[in-house]
Amino acid sequence: MDVISVIRTKRDRGELSDEQIDWVIDAYTRGAVADEQMSALAMAILLNGMNRKEIARWTAAMIASGERMNFSSLSRPTSDKHSTGGVGDKITLPLGPLVAACGAAVPQLSGRGLGHTGGTLDKLEAIPGWRALLSNEEMLNVLDGVGSVICAAGDGLAPADKKLYALRDVTGTVEAIPLIASSIMSKKIAEGTGSLVLDVKVGTGAFMKNLDDARELASTMVELGTDSGVRTVALLTDMSTPLGLTAGNALEVRESVEVLAGGGPADVVELTLALAREMHDAAPEGRRPGEGAGRRLGDGRVASHDRGAGVTRTRSCRWPASSTWSRRRRPAS
Amino acid sequence: MDVISVIRTKRDRGELSDEQIDWVIDAYTRGAVADEQMSALAMAILLNGMNRKEIARWTAAMIASGERMNFSSLSRPTSDKHSTGGVGDKITLPLGPLVAACGAAVPQLSGRGLGHTGGTLDKLEAIPGWRALLSNEEMLNVLDGVGSVICAAGDGLAPADKKLYALRDVTGTVEAIPLIASSIMSKKIAEGTGSLVLDVKVGTGAFMKNLDDARELASTMVELGTDSGVRTVALLTDMSTPLGLTAGNALEVRESVEVLAGGGPADVVELTLALAREMHDAAPEGRRPGEGAGRRLGDGRVASHDRGAGVTRTRSCRWPASSTWSRRRRPAS
Repeated sequence: MDVISVIRTKRDRGELSDEQIDWVIDAYTRGAVADEQMSALAMAILLNGMNRKEIARWTAAMIASGERMNFSSLSRPTSDKHSTGGVGDKITLPLGPLVAACGAAVPQLSGRGLGHTGGTLDKLEAIPGWRALLSNEEMLNVLDGVGSVICAAGDGLAPADKKLYALRDVTGTVEAIPLIASSIMSKKIAEGTGSLVLDVKVGTGAFMKNLDDARELASTMVELGTDSGVRTVALLTDMSTPLGLTAGNALEVRESVEVLAGGGPADVVELTLALAREMHDAAPEGRRPGEGAGRRLGDGRVASHDRGAGVTRTRSCRWPASSTWSRRRRPAS
Repeated sequence: MDVISVIRTKRDRGELSDEQIDWVIDAYTRGAVADEQMSALAMAILLNGMNRKEIARWTAAMIASGERMNFSSLSRPTSDKHSTGGVGDKITLPLGPLVAACGAAVPQLSGRGLGHTGGTLDKLEAIPGWRALLSNEEMLNVLDGVGSVICAAGDGLAPADKKLYALRDVTGTVEAIPLIASSIMSKKIAEGTGSLVLDVKVGTGAFMKNLDDARELASTMVELGTDSGVRTVALLTDMSTPLGLTAGNALEVRESVEVLAGGGPADVVELTLALAREMHDAAPEGRRPGEGAGRRLGDGRVASHDRGAGVTRTRSCRWPASSTWSRRRRPAS
């Protein structure tokens, strides 16, 4: 097995074999395949694509490059959410506590900013003293006690993805749907969540600029999750204007606290509730967290502090008014 | 100017601007653009192509990355030849002395093996004591005195190409026609030869497997040379079986000596003479080297030693019998 034959296979529009994928991911993680070789392969994948079988194997190989977490000791059902990123998207901040208040455990292993979009960890670091790095034990303790944790993914989780993600960022190969899908899903599957709700952004402020690309990305990820035993659904949501009224780390934290206290911009509240409902529905029968997320936000019970005041909410809700989003539980085959 | 925007332009099938090309070649040569970024760009070029304007600018930028040689002090007209490489192709070895014996100066800056094909320098190193590295002054002295020199291109000649060539070799991006053409022609134009004859190999033993690709490569190089004031012609020659009766460094040197002494396999003799005639015709009127190359080989006058004996020549000449070669003086537009 040599890397040039792997690159040539994809360059010449061939299908990568299981053995080629397993080998190249492992060799890249070990450093036996160089960055300049992996970036040539990534560009060939971006331009020539991968089929469902290849993407599934690529994802499995990235998962196999590291450890897998285990939440089976928790009494609550686990449910996670991932957003593909957009401007002003602070939904994780109110969503985690809200779904936890309904009885689920939300293991939010979050990321940093990518391109023009902000990262959840960056936002929370606007709070003095907050830290993103927890040990696996600390994370499990918070999750068990509080029901929601937001922290950085440990180094042990899909290290191949960590390395490839950084490489793609500097080589113009971010926008490859097979690589985006496998990057997100390898971490979520390795994390071990029972169910997963994907918020796939589409529009001028998102990485996916049109509905077809967003739909392809969403269905690819739903397939990957479902095939790995994670109950996965995806929403396509509009990102043609910023979400909420603020963008910027500290401002977004403040807006999120307002939402938790029963206020906040209507679009943020609506999307938070829509995702909370999906996370409820995605949990297995008999282990579903309680309903009534809207009521919980409405009376401010989720927040432990007073309702923020003084923020102008002049804009009417635009979400989910447009035709550029739709709910999908199963990929269009 | 940043490298990701350059990569994205070509990735998304755009045309690279003069400024983008000048910048990326210079920045790569300086190390400001990393190998993993250049290899992603090379793969995008391989898959999405470059137009004539882009290739010309890319070649000019590689020439500008180093020094240019000057043969104007020589009394003889300079004429060079380049082969795109094939199995058993030792033509440079008899051709240089033969054309020199006819009165031209042949500045053969040669290369190493690439892929499955041997390199002229590797072959000559089978001769104990022979060395490939000459200073520019040594090279000019040999060329002036003997009329033919075969040596390695100095580090000062198109250093951008030297770096990119090594990168392409390990990233599956060798077979890009714009990159092959600009690599060859940047060195030949920087070398400063007055005329150039290209031997473009086509067939299973060559990098170009089919006639269309070989024709495209040939016409691209002829355009590049002509646009830069180098009188350039190209032959497409068959490489579906090895050339001559031997392949291997020392064996090929011995076969070449036989040809110089008036013997040798008929196909090697025929191709050597065909290229010698092209080199004669490509020189400017009034400065053409003498004719009669065939007679010079036939009576062994070019060789300073006895005719080799004992080599079986059982195969009849197959060159230029096939329909897969044709002479072209101007590109098909």
